[in-house]
Amino acid sequence: MRKRKALIVIVGAMIPSLVMSLESAVAQPNPVAMQVVSPVVKPDGAVIFRVYAPKATDVKVTGPDIPDLGPGRTMTRNDDGVWELTLGPLAAGAYRYVFNIDEVNVVDPKSGLTAESNGKVWSLVCVPGSNEMDTRDVPHGAVSEITYYSSVLKRHRRMHVYTPPGYEKSDGTYPVLYLLHGAFDCDDAWTSVGRAGDILDNLIADGKVTPMIVVMPMGHKGPFKWGEPLTDATAFIDEFTKDVMPTAERRYRVRADRAHRAIAGLSMGGDQSLNVFLEDMNRFAYVGVFSSGVFAIGRQLGASGDTRQKWLAAHERALDDADAKKGLKLIWFAIGREDFLLDLSRETVELLKAHGFEPQYRETAGGHTWLNWRDYLIEFAPKLFR
Amino acid sequence: MRKRKALIVIVGAMIPSLVMSLESAVAQPNPVAMQVVSPVVKPDGAVIFRVYAPKATDVKVTGPDIPDLGPGRTMTRNDDGVWELTLGPLAAGAYRYVFNIDEVNVVDPKSGLTAESNGKVWSLVCVPGSNEMDTRDVPHGAVSEITYYSSVLKRHRRMHVYTPPGYEKSDGTYPVLYLLHGAFDCDDAWTSVGRAGDILDNLIADGKVTPMIVVMPMGHKGPFKWGEPLTDATAFIDEFTKDVMPTAERRYRVRADRAHRAIAGLSMGGDQSLNVFLEDMNRFAYVGVFSSGVFAIGRQLGASGDTRQKWLAAHERALDDADAKKGLKLIWFAIGREDFLLDLSRETVELLKAHGFEPQYRETAGGHTWLNWRDYLIEFAPKLFR
Repeated sequence: MRKRKALIVIVGAMIPSLVMSLESAVAQPNPVAMQVVSPVVKPDGAVIFRVYAPKATDVKVTGPDIPDLGPGRTMTRNDDGVWELTLGPLAAGAYRYVFNIDEVNVVDPKSGLTAESNGKVWSLVCVPGSNEMDTRDVPHGAVSEITYYSSVLKRHRRMHVYTPPGYEKSDGTYPVLYLLHGAFDCDDAWTSVGRAGDILDNLIADGKVTPMIVVMPMGHKGPFKWGEPLTDATAFIDEFTKDVMPTAERRYRVRADRAHRAIAGLSMGGDQSLNVFLEDMNRFAYVGVFSSGVFAIGRQLGASGDTRQKWLAAHERALDDADAKKGLKLIWFAIGREDFLLDLSRETVELLKAHGFEPQYRETAGGHTWLNWRDYLIEFAPKLFR
Repeated sequence: MRKRKALIVIVGAMIPSLVMSLESAVAQPNPVAMQVVSPVVKPDGAVIFRVYAPKATDVKVTGPDIPDLGPGRTMTRNDDGVWELTLGPLAAGAYRYVFNIDEVNVVDPKSGLTAESNGKVWSLVCVPGSNEMDTRDVPHGAVSEITYYSSVLKRHRRMHVYTPPGYEKSDGTYPVLYLLHGAFDCDDAWTSVGRAGDILDNLIADGKVTPMIVVMPMGHKGPFKWGEPLTDATAFIDEFTKDVMPTAERRYRVRADRAHRAIAGLSMGGDQSLNVFLEDMNRFAYVGVFSSGVFAIGRQLGASGDTRQKWLAAHERALDDADAKKGLKLIWFAIGREDFLLDLSRETVELLKAHGFEPQYRETAGGHTWLNWRDYLIEFAPKLFR
């Protein structure tokens, strides 16, 4: 046995030359570029970013999640053409970033960890140190990508589905949380930058959350195209009702009744959650609205008094349906005090109260960022299906 | 209802301004960059690649899968700073690519579709037109990413798992194919560039393949580092035996016996498949070796006569175990006539024959590429568990 092990080590040493020959076939391997390591997370949470760009005149780190980064922070070039910058220490969590190399935003060529947004891809760096977000040695669920045919959009679509630890071997049925992303994101966001898989694994392991399936559909009608008005909102409600929910209930062992269904979303997904809920309140016992409200009443989003009145008129019957309200166990709002949708959230809560709902509402520190949305999921999930 | 739909369309039109404001917060949005669309697959299979890089002096498309691309093909710059190149028509399939912008390899900033390799990320473009590889309107399985703790490597690892259509709702047990990637790849490769999910869905729908679970583990000990000898081979066998197979059998409803277990891999994964198989033949009834053989006997990989003799001595008992051979239903090889490992594959087949095995072996057109490996899976999978 020992002899064979030693032998296999020798053989293993051949593999670099094989990889090297494959790599050479693709592009001239540059010895400096090959040695670059990026990103590097230091023990204190500071992150070193590096990229080889010998001919570039200006290279920045940029991204939507790292606080105080503004439009990007310029890196420093060394004599070998490697640009470097250390940011942080950053709080435990996940951060998307790209390098802006002479005006071109590119993912980190040295990292395999990415997060997809709406038609784009970011590099992702995870800073450990959170009991809720780290990958811990607990039973793990699975995150699936599944394909379904959308009868509404007449094409195949993808969704992500989290199944809790034990699901794949059990024959039990589980409650379902439909978890919606924001306008900037896609169905990948809640499990990449949002860490929903790890968060659920950890909270279930700690006995704080009821094991549940989490269905994360695509919230956009299609990849976002600049200058084209999105007509998602109608399509989303329609597709959610005719395709997303039926697909989830057909393919997974779910408890398909109101008491075991929740819907929540951030930003655009919060607006969608409210619209789907109000389309037929009898489907959901739990609603979560993260950093959002009813877009149609939001002055920040350009809604006029007229738009608001039209929305109210259209939803009056639902808003005042006392019977349907009886099965609602929780409608929960959270938003940061620096969020640009703060007024929208407050107004939506007031609107719901005026129609006899009893929303739970709380304001936190921070703004319209994934730093808050992960925390809101950590706070919201334990309230479900108890 | 109609009134509300019209209203929601109006509200939907607000979302671009929201996205725009988020995007602006990240980096100055450039109006030219925003309008770039890439890649575009034309009806004949030609692919248009575009990237905005106004200050670059040399921009190429490069990648390991597009035939005859060599070290990359130079793109043409227009007056707005957008570089463009049309390649193909390409055969139906999936192709990884990056842009080489002044010596920096970067994924397509306008595409969300990626394929991960060993510590890196590629853009991916799929050219439709294959009955086996296209996403068709058939029942779909799921591809999961799962996390497990490796007792051998003392850290968390990821694997991909394909479950066939109906698995998540059924309580049946299924046979398992362990499907290993090459030295250049990671556990993502078989389902991204390898299209294994769609291939299995289609072949199952067409009645050609027995519904099975496909477990795709990580074949490298860790991210590949240049200049460091890989010591994977021993670690892989060890981890496969102690962690990968037990994790799959603990977490999924599998038929955990020899007749319902297969192992196959490409290149490095083919060598690993043979090594795992020979470690204990009684575990697997089916073995597939795509574009590979026993690395330790391969002169192309630098194996000396001495290495070869040592390997033979170490494996003599297994190679000549007549009892263990009885439960082996198939050991199948395929390799392209232009593959640089052609001799290795032939020698391995001869070696097995000399020890009383009856390998099936066939040579195809082409070389050491995913164009062949997808086809080999399409050919191999129908032979399993019948």
